[in-house]
Amino acid sequence: MPRTRDPKELFDAAVAGDRAAVARLLSVVERGGPAARDVSRLVFPRCGDAYTVGITGAPGAGKSTLTDQVITTIRGAGEEVGVLAVDPSSPFSGGAILGDRVRMQDHALDQGVFIRSMATRGHLGGLTLATREAIRVLDASGFRLVLVETVGVGQVEVEIAQAADTTVVVVNPGWGDAVQANKAGLLEIADVFVINKADRPGVRETERDLKSMLSMSDLGDWTPPIVPAVASTGEGVADVWAAIGDHRRHLEGSGLLEGRRRHRLEDELREIVVRRLEQEAYQRCADAFERLLVGVLERRVDPYSAADELVETLRGGED
Amino acid sequence: MPRTRDPKELFDAAVAGDRAAVARLLSVVERGGPAARDVSRLVFPRCGDAYTVGITGAPGAGKSTLTDQVITTIRGAGEEVGVLAVDPSSPFSGGAILGDRVRMQDHALDQGVFIRSMATRGHLGGLTLATREAIRVLDASGFRLVLVETVGVGQVEVEIAQAADTTVVVVNPGWGDAVQANKAGLLEIADVFVINKADRPGVRETERDLKSMLSMSDLGDWTPPIVPAVASTGEGVADVWAAIGDHRRHLEGSGLLEGRRRHRLEDELREIVVRRLEQEAYQRCADAFERLLVGVLERRVDPYSAADELVETLRGGED
Repeated sequence: MPRTRDPKELFDAAVAGDRAAVARLLSVVERGGPAARDVSRLVFPRCGDAYTVGITGAPGAGKSTLTDQVITTIRGAGEEVGVLAVDPSSPFSGGAILGDRVRMQDHALDQGVFIRSMATRGHLGGLTLATREAIRVLDASGFRLVLVETVGVGQVEVEIAQAADTTVVVVNPGWGDAVQANKAGLLEIADVFVINKADRPGVRETERDLKSMLSMSDLGDWTPPIVPAVASTGEGVADVWAAIGDHRRHLEGSGLLEGRRRHRLEDELREIVVRRLEQEAYQRCADAFERLLVGVLERRVDPYSAADELVETLRGGED
Repeated sequence: MPRTRDPKELFDAAVAGDRAAVARLLSVVERGGPAARDVSRLVFPRCGDAYTVGITGAPGAGKSTLTDQVITTIRGAGEEVGVLAVDPSSPFSGGAILGDRVRMQDHALDQGVFIRSMATRGHLGGLTLATREAIRVLDASGFRLVLVETVGVGQVEVEIAQAADTTVVVVNPGWGDAVQANKAGLLEIADVFVINKADRPGVRETERDLKSMLSMSDLGDWTPPIVPAVASTGEGVADVWAAIGDHRRHLEGSGLLEGRRRHRLEDELREIVVRRLEQEAYQRCADAFERLLVGVLERRVDPYSAADELVETLRGGED
């Protein structure tokens, strides 16, 4: 008799190597709610080993093709890899944004590769928190390496990229692209730059622009290497992977990796607490909120005083 | 004997037309804290009449020059105007980002124009909430028209632009720029498009691209006009101002203005409540938070369960 397996059964199956169970755990995480909480509790103590690589950049920069080639490189070295493709602008998931991901299906029959598109449905705190949780599901399922590819260059993409141990920013030849990377805040989060489509003109100018922008930044101990590549032919992909390895050894050797991960967990905890407080406040004080909102709309009370009153009501108990 | 005037005195002076008092009120708002709360309480009941125009777009698009020319147009019509220039990337304020604002100093001796750069220091909820508050300070000080110019195209800029009744998005001729506007979410918030630097080639292509992107959007009752202009010579600026007026009449005539403003106030109240809850949680439960964080870092408890425990502690009273 077929039945829905509960999170514990799914988790045990995922840890034992059942890829379908991994996919179903990720669906549970995306949907949010109590079952997602159960998954968190099961997964969290079992993870912490996976190294995470974020790949981001403007749409059209060739991130999917590069990711595809990096997967091939990783598989060539005999390692397993989990891949999350995250699209903040898409309300769909589980394959809906796989349009430009056809090439990745070269890996579809390879048990050593697990590829999954992520979007958000009901997860508390949205896609950023859901992605961190999904990384942990892959981690606990035994993947020592997780790639996270994001589509777009908005705030959410930057946040998601920050969840990675090494962040790769993909640009293309052309002055504007390097400048866009700067504007979008990508310069601050890049550990490795890839100038993809490097068979086009303007590579040297883009490299010079990136270097000049980097020279104005506070870089600390690591200067992001700038690696030219042509992902569509595989040219330079080994160099990209080598640069990621260099950055990893830098973080591990200097003790920075542990510090970064602790800092990320602290940020995540704070974010979850805020979302929980918000949720609880509106559940417990729905009537008080409505009443205060009317007061604000009628300009009888300013929003800051109204917020004070609501916090007082919450402290005093049920509404 | 000179002394620091309190918010009430500053407020009374600002309402009476003292521009220096307006500037000092804005500084109080930027700094945040109890004095900023006092300003909110004083200002809120006295405002609601100012019409707000947001001007945004990529760096280099010529927003400052356009804003400068729009000010001249407004002054030519005999109206007074308050202007906020908001730079989310700058930790400075009060003139520090006025570098490219030299042209605006044409208006420096004009009592009918008040120009101020805004950044954030301590304001609860950051620059978005501080800007809304600053708009209200200008509103209560008697300005019937407030321009808000933002630098950059990130999430914060979009949020700030959404605080305006009419949002003007400035692009330049060139295919890439229209596409960038789409990517950055500016397309969704634009009520009026300005193709600035329209003496350069590519105006028609940019117009076509914008139209094609608009045709794929859910526009409702208003189709954003696309206005070519050369802000540096003043060409087309009267058309820009006319398009803003058209949009204003559309909002006022359809009753949409009231609805938009109510919706914005509700969002603002929710945001303030969340920030207050967060602040209060960490004040009351600092020790519990530290203890739970250690548990998370040592992987004894997952972040979601830790957040639950913290919310329980808050509900139970002091830590």
